[in-house]
Amino acid sequence: MIIHMQRGATPAQEQAVFDRIAAHGLQYEVIHGSTGIDVIGVLGDTSAVEESTFAELDGVVKVTPVTKPYRRVSRKVPGDAKIVRVGDIEVGGREAVLMAGPCAVESEAQLMTIARYVAGCGIRILRGGAYKPRTSPYSFSGLGLAGLKLLAKARQEFGLKIVTEATGLHRHLREDGSLEELNVLEQVLAYADIVQVGARNMKSYGFLQELARMTRAAKTPILLKRGESSTLKDFLLAAEYIVINGNPNVMLCLRGIRAFEDPEFLRYTPDIGAVAVLKRECNLPVLFDPSHATGYRESVPAVGLAALAAGADGLLIETHHDPAGARCDGEQSITADQLVELQRNAARLRHCGLTARP
Amino acid sequence: MIIHMQRGATPAQEQAVFDRIAAHGLQYEVIHGSTGIDVIGVLGDTSAVEESTFAELDGVVKVTPVTKPYRRVSRKVPGDAKIVRVGDIEVGGREAVLMAGPCAVESEAQLMTIARYVAGCGIRILRGGAYKPRTSPYSFSGLGLAGLKLLAKARQEFGLKIVTEATGLHRHLREDGSLEELNVLEQVLAYADIVQVGARNMKSYGFLQELARMTRAAKTPILLKRGESSTLKDFLLAAEYIVINGNPNVMLCLRGIRAFEDPEFLRYTPDIGAVAVLKRECNLPVLFDPSHATGYRESVPAVGLAALAAGADGLLIETHHDPAGARCDGEQSITADQLVELQRNAARLRHCGLTARP
Amino acid sequence: MIIHMQRGATPAQEQAVFDRIAAHGLQYEVIHGSTGIDVIGVLGDTSAVEESTFAELDGVVKVTPVTKPYRRVSRKVPGDAKIVRVGDIEVGGREAVLMAGPCAVESEAQLMTIARYVAGCGIRILRGGAYKPRTSPYSFSGLGLAGLKLLAKARQEFGLKIVTEATGLHRHLREDGSLEELNVLEQVLAYADIVQVGARNMKSYGFLQELARMTRAAKTPILLKRGESSTLKDFLLAAEYIVINGNPNVMLCLRGIRAFEDPEFLRYTPDIGAVAVLKRECNLPVLFDPSHATGYRESVPAVGLAALAAGADGLLIETHHDPAGARCDGEQSITADQLVELQRNAARLRHCGLTARP
Amino acid sequence: MIIHMQRGATPAQEQAVFDRIAAHGLQYEVIHGSTGIDVIGVLGDTSAVEESTFAELDGVVKVTPVTKPYRRVSRKVPGDAKIVRVGDIEVGGREAVLMAGPCAVESEAQLMTIARYVAGCGIRILRGGAYKPRTSPYSFSGLGLAGLKLLAKARQEFGLKIVTEATGLHRHLREDGSLEELNVLEQVLAYADIVQVGARNMKSYGFLQELARMTRAAKTPILLKRGESSTLKDFLLAAEYIVINGNPNVMLCLRGIRAFEDPEFLRYTPDIGAVAVLKRECNLPVLFDPSHATGYRESVPAVGLAALAAGADGLLIETHHDPAGARCDGEQSITADQLVELQRNAARLRHCGLTARP
Repeated sequence: MIIHMQRGATPAQEQAVFDRIAAHGLQYEVIHGSTGIDVIGVLGDTSAVEESTFAELDGVVKVTPVTKPYRRVSRKVPGDAKIVRVGDIEVGGREAVLMAGPCAVESEAQLMTIARYVAGCGIRILRGGAYKPRTSPYSFSGLGLAGLKLLAKARQEFGLKIVTEATGLHRHLREDGSLEELNVLEQVLAYADIVQVGARNMKSYGFLQELARMTRAAKTPILLKRGESSTLKDFLLAAEYIVINGNPNVMLCLRGIRAFEDPEFLRYTPDIGAVAVLKRECNLPVLFDPSHATGYRESVPAVGLAALAAGADGLLIETHHDPAGARCDGEQSITADQLVELQRNAARLRHCGLTARP
Repeated sequence: MIIHMQRGATPAQEQAVFDRIAAHGLQYEVIHGSTGIDVIGVLGDTSAVEESTFAELDGVVKVTPVTKPYRRVSRKVPGDAKIVRVGDIEVGGREAVLMAGPCAVESEAQLMTIARYVAGCGIRILRGGAYKPRTSPYSFSGLGLAGLKLLAKARQEFGLKIVTEATGLHRHLREDGSLEELNVLEQVLAYADIVQVGARNMKSYGFLQELARMTRAAKTPILLKRGESSTLKDFLLAAEYIVINGNPNVMLCLRGIRAFEDPEFLRYTPDIGAVAVLKRECNLPVLFDPSHATGYRESVPAVGLAALAAGADGLLIETHHDPAGARCDGEQSITADQLVELQRNAARLRHCGLTARP
Repeated sequence: MIIHMQRGATPAQEQAVFDRIAAHGLQYEVIHGSTGIDVIGVLGDTSAVEESTFAELDGVVKVTPVTKPYRRVSRKVPGDAKIVRVGDIEVGGREAVLMAGPCAVESEAQLMTIARYVAGCGIRILRGGAYKPRTSPYSFSGLGLAGLKLLAKARQEFGLKIVTEATGLHRHLREDGSLEELNVLEQVLAYADIVQVGARNMKSYGFLQELARMTRAAKTPILLKRGESSTLKDFLLAAEYIVINGNPNVMLCLRGIRAFEDPEFLRYTPDIGAVAVLKRECNLPVLFDPSHATGYRESVPAVGLAALAAGADGLLIETHHDPAGARCDGEQSITADQLVELQRNAARLRHCGLTARP
Repeated sequence: MIIHMQRGATPAQEQAVFDRIAAHGLQYEVIHGSTGIDVIGVLGDTSAVEESTFAELDGVVKVTPVTKPYRRVSRKVPGDAKIVRVGDIEVGGREAVLMAGPCAVESEAQLMTIARYVAGCGIRILRGGAYKPRTSPYSFSGLGLAGLKLLAKARQEFGLKIVTEATGLHRHLREDGSLEELNVLEQVLAYADIVQVGARNMKSYGFLQELARMTRAAKTPILLKRGESSTLKDFLLAAEYIVINGNPNVMLCLRGIRAFEDPEFLRYTPDIGAVAVLKRECNLPVLFDPSHATGYRESVPAVGLAALAAGADGLLIETHHDPAGARCDGEQSITADQLVELQRNAARLRHCGLTARP
């Protein structure tokens, strides 16, 4: 930790800093400038010390840390890359992994139709929301447990793995106004191969802790989405919450950030630059969701391909056999034909070695 | 709902739109342009119909809604303003209401010292976090139940009302690694006069529903903070979630948004413009938190006063008797002297009629 | 300048840093950590040295400056505040100074009508655009020289001072397709009491240099608007460009920044927090433009009052006698009645001492 | 143009709208809702009518346009794509075009060294700044005319085309304090094969008009960079300014936008999503600058490749033989080795058909 002193800080102010360092059992060294001490370097283990402890003192300009705050998920050496296994599928390994399916499970007919063509083009993980966080309380919020059961059926029938979101620790309010018995996380854990944590929950730290504790034994893979205005540092710290509470199998998923783009063209700003940064900065697999990142079907293939070229380990994609009839996110769901082509291009990109690897 | 058709849409495309309107049991009218139908107006109750239902169809350029999506909390007529009562204190009424206290409850000595000077300058609501959401899993996350008990003690001793945050439905992980028995919301409901929903939870819709249900009988006042990158429309819809699930006593609280300001000057961008908009757009009381909005003590009084001048019904303020020694947010906690002056200026501003009222 | 070294930097890497420091004729001191050198402090005048000079070297983690890059406009001591004089009007002094008028000069009748009521409510500076930067090449771009002459007439008739924008060094393209003879800046300098530099030109550094040179003798007051996505540091450096090239009479004007707010509610995000920061950080007067910052007439008085409460030295306001008929910015132009009330409230706020002063 | 009326608008308010439509010589049709007129459609050529003309009237909720405001550069039919020729190089055609070189021309030795390896890896366009806009007035602002002459020499020696920025219509201030004789644009036009308009000048509309006029005969290709907080609509309108003033040879260049990313990881947010949108929305070539978009050399190849995968027609890249010694932007300049690999990957990506084409 480096403490930058004000020009003209008094000896008494300097002493107050030294005293507080000593009070934490730490040592220090100083750099002298032309008019007094410029900088005080704190030596020793400062991981439990808040920066504001010193920033608050008179005469201190600012305090800068020197170690990464996300200790467990940071990339220690080049090539340090965790592979998360979902059955025999390796996320973060040699192949780009696509996960595709509808935004929401709507009915048996809908899910089976979609699952069939998803499996048919060689994709092995099916996405689908049974619990849907919705901006408006008047919107469809998912089939709940009935949706999970349909996902299980699709898994059985087509040999797919299932990724679905757990929206929290509350009980689900059904469309008829009744409540499910168990909380959403408990329900999801009974069915999912991968538990998705949505962007809105990335900073629900208590939820992340419970999730890690409840999956400590099974080490169920977690797909953690970046909050729409989260910094990358905060994103990695959210992953750290899960890892230090017992479940190391975390996959990061980028899904666009909130900037100022014209909403008629882009609903979010695809954070492709973050792919390159995360692959360097941490050792977890990094996925990309071009459906939410763009908001419009027309841009999904281009941005999906771009994310893979930038080094993403896979994609999370919304697809629907009848986008115009979808109960949610129809505009950003690609068609079966688009999915086939994207899957093929993703594979070729990898096989041609045309994806950045740090 | 207004459906804008593409120039050159075919009669078959137009017919598909008409068919879908009919399928929802609705009527329509059309406007003809020089080359065909320009616009189709959908008539009837469209509240259950997603815009994408039509936006998806070929030949449709865009679809625009014509009613406010937040029905219950919208301001119906000028002067339509809800007052939320906390004991005999009226939030949203004639007086500006200040709520002040430490970021986190740290110890009995700390809380009593602060509560004393808060009460001493005429402020009647004490804030203080027993459960603290923290970006890093290595940071202090609050005293939990022990903190709530200290808040109750301060209430008793100084005749203050208590506002404190419920961070979720999980059980709190104590510093010694053990878990509290009840979930955080249950604990907080047993102690708080006002339950705060933090910015990170504004979009935890399941949590908002549970909160509303659990306070349906008592109608406990809820202080709902704006998510750091939430639009105002989404903020009002989050309030709508609470209101339609049974608790109408919602106070909105602005706390700065995420933009691009220099972090050494402003940790967030104070959203003072939103005060003016919300006072016009909805009927709920609007508070402002200048501590989080700015991040630096030096700016808190200026921005707090500005929020009141813009029409805010009150302020939520962090204060500490020893900011440099605070376990969190010391940099943005104002001193006792600053608080006295801010409270005095707030009262004078109101009494001079110098606050915007829509 | 502080150079943070990587853990495990080699002696050769350290030596390369030392060599480069020496090559610039500077000295240094070091702080040792547990595994080598943690930090190297560069001593001497580093103002001509880019940070990247060192940041680029192997083994260097980052480089942080220790002095303010905007030397001339920074606030050296509490109370260090420049007053800019416009005739006998003092901007930055005891009174809040309002400048009001139409977005664009449209006609003699329009300007005289507005100038009359502006003067009538005690405002002494008239704004009005003769040269208008427009997002679309198909929009009205101002009357040019003819507009300047009308402003001069209003000045004469009502004893007002004139603030008007110089959009650049190009010649103005009239609506009839012909070009004016002189460049825009030359024309404006012949008429304006205050030259406005618009947000779009804040980073036109060559233009700022020419402007400073051309006003070096007269020291014409300059009103410099913040670029819509400019950091405060960059804003102050733009002011520095003018000051070091010969004209110290710079007034800063905030006008909202680009964030993600709902465009139907706010066209920009009013940067009220920046008022408080700038008043502390620099010694120049700080104005606020609530018309552009909000984009809607309904919010202008509330946000204008808020800016003054936060410490702004004055306001720049768009007003129109017939907003619905305005050729540009009608939606954000307040009426004569609103202007009278805002002027009265501004004066009372100042006289009650209810404006933050650093 | 579609005018949305308030529920409960009075007949008198409706009549006022009809009158104003008639006053502009236009016709209309109406859609009736349950309580009166919902929508009024304006028929006829509305290109000269501001939306606020109607938005201002009582009883009007909002006004929406129905045609693209950028008429000349919009993409009329699938496949409508302009090719800009720079000598025998086609930008927007079959091959991805790379332009590479130093941020600033620093010396003959530097430029020739870099030009040699740029040409050596098959790149045919050399970038290099002779005039550099700098945030701080104390930074190196380019060699000016001397820099242009060095670029001309490199062109001669290595058969390269030259792209360099014209920063405005001012005269350049040399490091010795003297002024160049001609203005910067005039100087640049005498030397450049492609004139670059920087992000800071994208909204300098008068400058764009002069530029278009001065290149009307020669049709010199223009590389127009997106402003850091410009919407895509505004970006296309800036291109429209150049095209309608006589020069159709405009290439768009994305270079990252201002969002909230951690500055230690990303200096801007790469706007890869905009590539996909622009390729659909307009008919101009779209380039991408991964150097400015990321700010760090480590991310440049990944993001450059991603832009090409998303459909970009080429890249603008900063490279330096000694990045640590560069006078500006060293941190984002890639090495010769990185350039070779990027050029090779770019070519393979195109030849494998792995780039999105709308």
